[in-house]
Amino acid sequence: MKIVSSLLPPREIQRSIREKFSEHEFHFFKQMEQVDEDLIADMEILITYAEDLHPEIIDRASSLKWISAMAAGIDRMPIETIEKRGILVTNARGIHAIPMSEFALGLMLSHVKRLADLRELQSNKTWNKWLPIGELCGKTLLVLGTGAIPEEIARLAGAFQMNVVGVNRSGRYLGEHFKKVHPIEQLNQLLPDADMVVSVLPSTPETKELLTYEHFERMKNNALFINLGRGDLMTLETLKRVLEDELVGHMALDVFPEEPLGADNLLWNYPNLTITPHLSSITENYLPRAFSIFEHNLAVYSGKADGDYLNKIDLTKGY
Amino acid sequence: MKIVSSLLPPREIQRSIREKFSEHEFHFFKQMEQVDEDLIADMEILITYAEDLHPEIIDRASSLKWISAMAAGIDRMPIETIEKRGILVTNARGIHAIPMSEFALGLMLSHVKRLADLRELQSNKTWNKWLPIGELCGKTLLVLGTGAIPEEIARLAGAFQMNVVGVNRSGRYLGEHFKKVHPIEQLNQLLPDADMVVSVLPSTPETKELLTYEHFERMKNNALFINLGRGDLMTLETLKRVLEDELVGHMALDVFPEEPLGADNLLWNYPNLTITPHLSSITENYLPRAFSIFEHNLAVYSGKADGDYLNKIDLTKGY
Repeated sequence: MKIVSSLLPPREIQRSIREKFSEHEFHFFKQMEQVDEDLIADMEILITYAEDLHPEIIDRASSLKWISAMAAGIDRMPIETIEKRGILVTNARGIHAIPMSEFALGLMLSHVKRLADLRELQSNKTWNKWLPIGELCGKTLLVLGTGAIPEEIARLAGAFQMNVVGVNRSGRYLGEHFKKVHPIEQLNQLLPDADMVVSVLPSTPETKELLTYEHFERMKNNALFINLGRGDLMTLETLKRVLEDELVGHMALDVFPEEPLGADNLLWNYPNLTITPHLSSITENYLPRAFSIFEHNLAVYSGKADGDYLNKIDLTKGY
Repeated sequence: MKIVSSLLPPREIQRSIREKFSEHEFHFFKQMEQVDEDLIADMEILITYAEDLHPEIIDRASSLKWISAMAAGIDRMPIETIEKRGILVTNARGIHAIPMSEFALGLMLSHVKRLADLRELQSNKTWNKWLPIGELCGKTLLVLGTGAIPEEIARLAGAFQMNVVGVNRSGRYLGEHFKKVHPIEQLNQLLPDADMVVSVLPSTPETKELLTYEHFERMKNNALFINLGRGDLMTLETLKRVLEDELVGHMALDVFPEEPLGADNLLWNYPNLTITPHLSSITENYLPRAFSIFEHNLAVYSGKADGDYLNKIDLTKGY
């Protein structure tokens, strides 16, 4: 059985998986473009970041039975074509909670501790002991969504004695780290109390362009807004107007309506915007964790282990 | 009774304390230099950051019976002169744990998430999704000291699933957040395993110049070293040699052998050193918390409340 990976994990991981599954033929590539026609036609399993697929590749991959997406978002895959063929799809859901919650807390602490201003003072060789510094302790954090990543953000923010509030579709909540969870309809009432608002929402028809200029008008004018989820949470126009009108104290965005940002993009210049290049979930531990899920699923697929697939996607629901 | 403060709290705090203790006469100043001779002679209680006292002031303050230090460190006070006069000294011990532990975690997260490099990418308008980002999760943190502030750092680092190890004089430990505490004699064996080393040690004869060049040689060459305690933990010469020889990956110092750093100080220029101006403990919540301790002690002093003084200093021990 031929297994193709359109991403290149560290040699250590390649060696380990080849050893454990020596009955299969593994082909690792840096990108999809490097995979030749014959191999595309022959591969039964494809390991991918789920951004390099289009209907035409799926058509050519006539032996393909399983796509192992090493990402959480599968919104850039040709779902319809894949569903028609009955191809199994799994993803890497769950491995994002630790790196993304750490990233969120890093941005939050960096903001209250004014690390960027302190860095600026250092480059100006200025000792200013009286720069006003804040705390997370006692502040109110509003998290959009209450899934695995929001839950981990809530747990960490709770450790810092923050008042952590969440919103989701129904307002139902069975976890333990949010102090209170409200239905999304109450968002407008919640925004004025939040010192920080964090979104890690995926892109779905319901979340697309969910946030409007009016939502930002309701936030505190010194609030910190962070989006690590998907860039279509608001339109580019909304984003620019909110920044220009300084409706919040600062924004930190890891995702944008269009990515990557080109060098001529005007967003780079806003002093009230921190830009990071869609990497909050990617750390040294990402591929080890993703391949550990893949190994479990490959053992199930090969009949070497009993049990269910981890993170099997229901394509009709999209998650 | 005349109460002088050589520091100026927000009006809200001044009003509140005047209301609660209307039988006393409060005088608030921005600094000691503004207090006139008569008032110095008449004041019975002095509220101070404990950096503006010298023997000659104590001599002139002939009515002085209580110094309420709104700081933790009292190593810059003329202890001998104060002790001879039998003046009561209290400090603000305990209110530093939250802001300083938040600051430590902020520096740690900023380091692994490479927020300074990401900021640099933004100013160069460069989208680089493949900048290698790290995690706190799974890393080993060594904290020098196991008092209230280290304990809070250990609690937060534990929430991030770090492996938190401590050292203190005896190796005895009754808290719950360190995984293991060793006696200081074992420091050399512990340093090679630490991904991060944090010191919040006060200045005492035992901690003065405790760390030598050889200690840094034993650390990982990508380790992060943070000092938020006192700047005399190592000599200026050690500090410079360690930075020049790049013995560790990065240093973040809030305290220095000599403070403040002048504009001509060479330390500003080291790319492997983050300089912050001795403010890790100072936040918007500092004075509210410090005055809440003072109010308790003033009620005891005035006979309005029973109980003991909070944070009474034993001058013979220095803490």
